[in-house]
Amino acid sequence: MSAPTPGLAVRVPFAELQALLQAILQRHGCSAAVAAVLAHNCASAQRDGAHSHGVFRIPGYVSTLASGWVDGQAVPAVTDVAAGHVRVDARGGFAQPALAAARALVVDKARSAGIAVLAIHNSHHFAALWPDVEPFANEGLVALSVVNSMTCVVPHGARKPLFGTNPIAFAAPCAGHDPIVFDMATSAMAHGDVQIAARAGERLAEGMGVDAAGQPTTDPKAILEGGALLPFGGHKGSALSMMVELLAAALTGGHFSWEFDWSGHPGAKTPWTGQLIIVIDPSQAEGGRFAERSRELVEQMQAVGLTRMPGERRYREREVAGRDGVALTEQELAGLRELAG
Amino acid sequence: MSAPTPGLAVRVPFAELQALLQAILQRHGCSAAVAAVLAHNCASAQRDGAHSHGVFRIPGYVSTLASGWVDGQAVPAVTDVAAGHVRVDARGGFAQPALAAARALVVDKARSAGIAVLAIHNSHHFAALWPDVEPFANEGLVALSVVNSMTCVVPHGARKPLFGTNPIAFAAPCAGHDPIVFDMATSAMAHGDVQIAARAGERLAEGMGVDAAGQPTTDPKAILEGGALLPFGGHKGSALSMMVELLAAALTGGHFSWEFDWSGHPGAKTPWTGQLIIVIDPSQAEGGRFAERSRELVEQMQAVGLTRMPGERRYREREVAGRDGVALTEQELAGLRELAG
Repeated sequence: MSAPTPGLAVRVPFAELQALLQAILQRHGCSAAVAAVLAHNCASAQRDGAHSHGVFRIPGYVSTLASGWVDGQAVPAVTDVAAGHVRVDARGGFAQPALAAARALVVDKARSAGIAVLAIHNSHHFAALWPDVEPFANEGLVALSVVNSMTCVVPHGARKPLFGTNPIAFAAPCAGHDPIVFDMATSAMAHGDVQIAARAGERLAEGMGVDAAGQPTTDPKAILEGGALLPFGGHKGSALSMMVELLAAALTGGHFSWEFDWSGHPGAKTPWTGQLIIVIDPSQAEGGRFAERSRELVEQMQAVGLTRMPGERRYREREVAGRDGVALTEQELAGLRELAG
Repeated sequence: MSAPTPGLAVRVPFAELQALLQAILQRHGCSAAVAAVLAHNCASAQRDGAHSHGVFRIPGYVSTLASGWVDGQAVPAVTDVAAGHVRVDARGGFAQPALAAARALVVDKARSAGIAVLAIHNSHHFAALWPDVEPFANEGLVALSVVNSMTCVVPHGARKPLFGTNPIAFAAPCAGHDPIVFDMATSAMAHGDVQIAARAGERLAEGMGVDAAGQPTTDPKAILEGGALLPFGGHKGSALSMMVELLAAALTGGHFSWEFDWSGHPGAKTPWTGQLIIVIDPSQAEGGRFAERSRELVEQMQAVGLTRMPGERRYREREVAGRDGVALTEQELAGLRELAG
């Protein structure tokens, strides 16, 4: 999650922001169906204060579409593989429309088989991961997702970058509360947050990354320009990042974070990899009281002094945005309007 | 993983060590079936150099069995819930015999449905977690397991301990290699390793835990006597530990790490919680080349300078033990023989 962008000055109704983003994406090469999914995703991130995945990403979408690297018109092909297995070929398009195309089938399978896996390949994921899992929890399901990205993380004990930021997201229902949701890069920081710090001229905390010579640095520009991020939590975060490569790429038929070459597509920004989502139906579990047990966990976490649950900041920002509109800077809004033409 | 115990002086053939451990466990209250499973597990940990879960654990097994806290004779009850869901009531016994009882059914379901979940509750897990997942990878399957334990970890941002050490283990096949396997506590250290450091009079690294007053300490005794561990990797490791509580306890119908009270059973050592195992059949995945892709990942990790893959130290120790016998100290062997009567 990112620090709030300084200088938020205007507030726009969610529907208006979503329509604006959809117009931009359609104007720059997306089909209406793809643009609708991506615009909702991006506006949701902005609404929830996840600024590294909000409108900050729009120039990247425009750039990568213009480069011809990603197909904004792709129609995903869904295959019903087995009682608990759905596969989607995103056909070189974005991962979110692929998920949208397979979502109902995956939910059906999770409810009938108890668990289901959705394997997306030939896909580009350029967004936050929590919007992919939170809706499952809103339907009473537990969801875990991993996506690999592009080489920018040095495995613990290695000399050179290999892994992507490789996030893991998890969502679970909680009786009487918003779902419990987290979305964490397995890198020490999310790549978008490094970009935001570089743009703001800020230094990073120790232990986030190395420069082009492999030496520790707190300069975000040095990380972005030939340097690399480190995994979070040393060898453990590194092992989790490796697991993400195996699940999101090897198990889906997608590319590893180092396998794609976009050098022929100047302006390309989106990692061409894969995504795995595991969905479990807790209503079939022993006792059948998952959401109540989840609430008991939250209450105990609060009792030992936790003041903020994972995902809670997003819900608070969402509440404010629902009342007052989604916050962004005047420059951002002007930039978006210019891109919409 | 633990540092090697100093003073390893004798080597015993694996089968002999296993038979000795089985005799001890049967003498102290386990049925032959339960003793066989636990003895194989514990001897395997010792063989592979995972000393915090090797014969070091045997006095704990004896103590917890003598206390009446765990039922060493329990016969697990397996329920076939759905096409991808198996549930086991361990009936107050150990988790490993519960897994053994359901294993074939879970493998069948993973192969037919593409994915399956095994939910174990009313169970005690007092062992390493990698022996539970590695065998799935040896059959070409991918396995992920979580188990919660007993309150000894302060959630990130909280004042008091709540979570257990809550490990996550993962195993995946790798063509022409041993499976890729990791087993990590979501605490900064495994509890058994803190005990070993305390016994050896060693200090810990910074950031592992707090004393009874909640202050950072490097004294393992201060962590064990009223203090607590910290999660690995700050808020991210803490979120993963929370996820383990939800998956291993809420989703299985088991107890959370803080929910059981063994005060009426002096000598009780084993957390009475739950365990979740997710098994995926990668042969149904796009491309069907999972194990080859897994090997390509390993080769790339080696190419960027990684000298040791997760799990590799265990395989090396195993190889030596297969040739020369399993290493333990003379005192350990004498202690085991005394316990065998």
